[in-house]
Amino acid sequence: MQFADRLKNVETSAIRELFKLLGKPGIISFAGGFPDPAMFDIEGIRQASSKALTEEPGAALQYGATEGYGPLREQLSSFMASKGVAVQPDGLIVTTGSQQALDLLGKTLINPGDRVIVEGPTFLATIQCFRLYGAEVISAPIDAHGVKTDELEKLMAEHQPRFVYLIPTFGNPSGALLGLERRRQVLEMAVRHQTLIVEDDPYGDLYFGEAPPPSLLSLTGSVPGSRELLAHCGSLSKVLSPGLRIGWMIAPPALLANAVMCKQFSDAHTSTFAQATAAHYLKAGRMPATLTHVRKVYGERAAAMGQALKRELGAAVSFEQPQGGLFFWARLTGEGGKISDAGEFAKKAIEQLVAFVPGAPFYAANPDMTTFRLSFATADVGKIEEGMARLGRAI
Amino acid sequence: MQFADRLKNVETSAIRELFKLLGKPGIISFAGGFPDPAMFDIEGIRQASSKALTEEPGAALQYGATEGYGPLREQLSSFMASKGVAVQPDGLIVTTGSQQALDLLGKTLINPGDRVIVEGPTFLATIQCFRLYGAEVISAPIDAHGVKTDELEKLMAEHQPRFVYLIPTFGNPSGALLGLERRRQVLEMAVRHQTLIVEDDPYGDLYFGEAPPPSLLSLTGSVPGSRELLAHCGSLSKVLSPGLRIGWMIAPPALLANAVMCKQFSDAHTSTFAQATAAHYLKAGRMPATLTHVRKVYGERAAAMGQALKRELGAAVSFEQPQGGLFFWARLTGEGGKISDAGEFAKKAIEQLVAFVPGAPFYAANPDMTTFRLSFATADVGKIEEGMARLGRAI
Repeated sequence: MQFADRLKNVETSAIRELFKLLGKPGIISFAGGFPDPAMFDIEGIRQASSKALTEEPGAALQYGATEGYGPLREQLSSFMASKGVAVQPDGLIVTTGSQQALDLLGKTLINPGDRVIVEGPTFLATIQCFRLYGAEVISAPIDAHGVKTDELEKLMAEHQPRFVYLIPTFGNPSGALLGLERRRQVLEMAVRHQTLIVEDDPYGDLYFGEAPPPSLLSLTGSVPGSRELLAHCGSLSKVLSPGLRIGWMIAPPALLANAVMCKQFSDAHTSTFAQATAAHYLKAGRMPATLTHVRKVYGERAAAMGQALKRELGAAVSFEQPQGGLFFWARLTGEGGKISDAGEFAKKAIEQLVAFVPGAPFYAANPDMTTFRLSFATADVGKIEEGMARLGRAI
Repeated sequence: MQFADRLKNVETSAIRELFKLLGKPGIISFAGGFPDPAMFDIEGIRQASSKALTEEPGAALQYGATEGYGPLREQLSSFMASKGVAVQPDGLIVTTGSQQALDLLGKTLINPGDRVIVEGPTFLATIQCFRLYGAEVISAPIDAHGVKTDELEKLMAEHQPRFVYLIPTFGNPSGALLGLERRRQVLEMAVRHQTLIVEDDPYGDLYFGEAPPPSLLSLTGSVPGSRELLAHCGSLSKVLSPGLRIGWMIAPPALLANAVMCKQFSDAHTSTFAQATAAHYLKAGRMPATLTHVRKVYGERAAAMGQALKRELGAAVSFEQPQGGLFFWARLTGEGGKISDAGEFAKKAIEQLVAFVPGAPFYAANPDMTTFRLSFATADVGKIEEGMARLGRAI
């Protein structure tokens, strides 16, 4: 059988290969990108789905509008309002996880050969998703404060990208937080170059201390002309449950309309059963308590990981302590003749029954082989300390 | 904002425009393509989802495997076995409705400019879905017994299509049932021309009297080499609930593997919450009773519609009585100077507060303007008789 040429642009994920090793008994894994299932508000979700089946069984089980279930769009509008963003229910569409928002952006916007700028490093599935539509994916370098805006602007001028994709708040894998001044600059650059910015924001609610700077979306109000050049992707996956597959996209009307047209032929609509459940969950007002709980637990784990990482690996690694999200992003310094290649380190770590993800696959180009990602979300503090001790033995 | 060229291949659906008129008070609609929500086994679904949240909340709410939730793949394997098809759980993948199976076939197989053969008429969203991937969609003519295999083979020889897409059992919109002999011929032609056949089968379980001939998939056993050239799409949407968005695809291993790779970047996976619910529903053994009930009710409605249509419209229409599915497919004969254009008839019908869908949009090319589709699924017998009387006044 002959397959479409677009498949040639995508490689089987190196991470998938690694994940096959995770079944080893006794392994402590920091490799995943998922939330801790112990954080799921099962009782709240049970009540919400039961209400959906009692109060509107027809709607919850029938075909629904491609743009999303009305009551959920209203609840998401309120949820965004609680984060300082004014968006009407019809200013957003519901997507099957925010992964589908990325797919719809690709389908709607990318012609084969078009350039798209992403952060280097960025979310692996974003790079592959855009490449499947034929995009040439260009990397803009980051530091501990997110994308370097001066370099980004040079790349925008040089490559005339179809759009720029950023995870400004607690990036995956970088954990980096884009500063307020840089956020303003990004929006100004969008207007100057008349280029769409895609803000992917699955982690913005997962802050441990102070709230992060406002999202690019909420800053568009202070940068004239920028709201028409911003698409914002949100998700319930990291704060409530990935299994519901509820994401959303806020974007200019013409882009939303085309995304809806494409979605009609992608999956008709997102599960109304899951949408009605999410709507009742949000309506019941349980989200603030859920967020408070999740922030506290992940905050403790992040603190524990930072301390243990310093204690056990010392000068052999360098990293910034993340202020939110799910990830540590670290570099092997090679100091004292220690391992400096993260792929090699990952193999030694597996021998010590501890797993993480080397950083290379997160780069669209020019990977930094010394980098690696640790998730602190799914292991408790005891496991984190034991895991870091194993890493200390592996290096 | 500039959009991707692929969007130029797709028109806004004429049906969508019509649907805007359906809000008119007092209207009786035969326009939809959905099942009757009164048929939904709400109690069974409630019990199933509650079990999923009690017995495996972690799995039901967490990220899941792209190929589908293990226990659901097992249940679907058993469900297919009950229909005479032997397929291992890993021989099928779960999709977000069978619409997503079509999208994944497009993404995996179609290069811009490739030809794909479909029935004329066929499911509208299939045509649009494949066109978004740049396919040139060719129509093979049908009669009351489904696609005309001699004409289909000529088209296959002429166009060398990437694949042939058929709804052999109670087609949408045709309601036609492909006979056993033609089914065998299709599989033999697949082998002769080494061309993939896509069998879309959302309606096969909805028969009113005798069971239809075996699916193309189950006939592959008797046509050597054909199993490697068949992709079969199934769905719970028409028999249980569209809102769950649970479909599946059975296909040769290389095609399944590439579809999974593409699905990873389309929506990561289908809602595990919906999948776990569907798995428990099937496991509880409620499906046979649900099917018996649905077949009985739809069978009565189809019978009532056929009688009333003859009584009220007489020689002004011609049609075959469907033996299953959701649809009547009829032709305006123009006899006695009556209307022969279905678009004009639809407008007159709306004035009489009754709605249906003209047939033209279901053709990829050369539409037959005299055709129209009536769904008997969502109106009870009384409404069907009143609706046909209104149609009689409209013509």
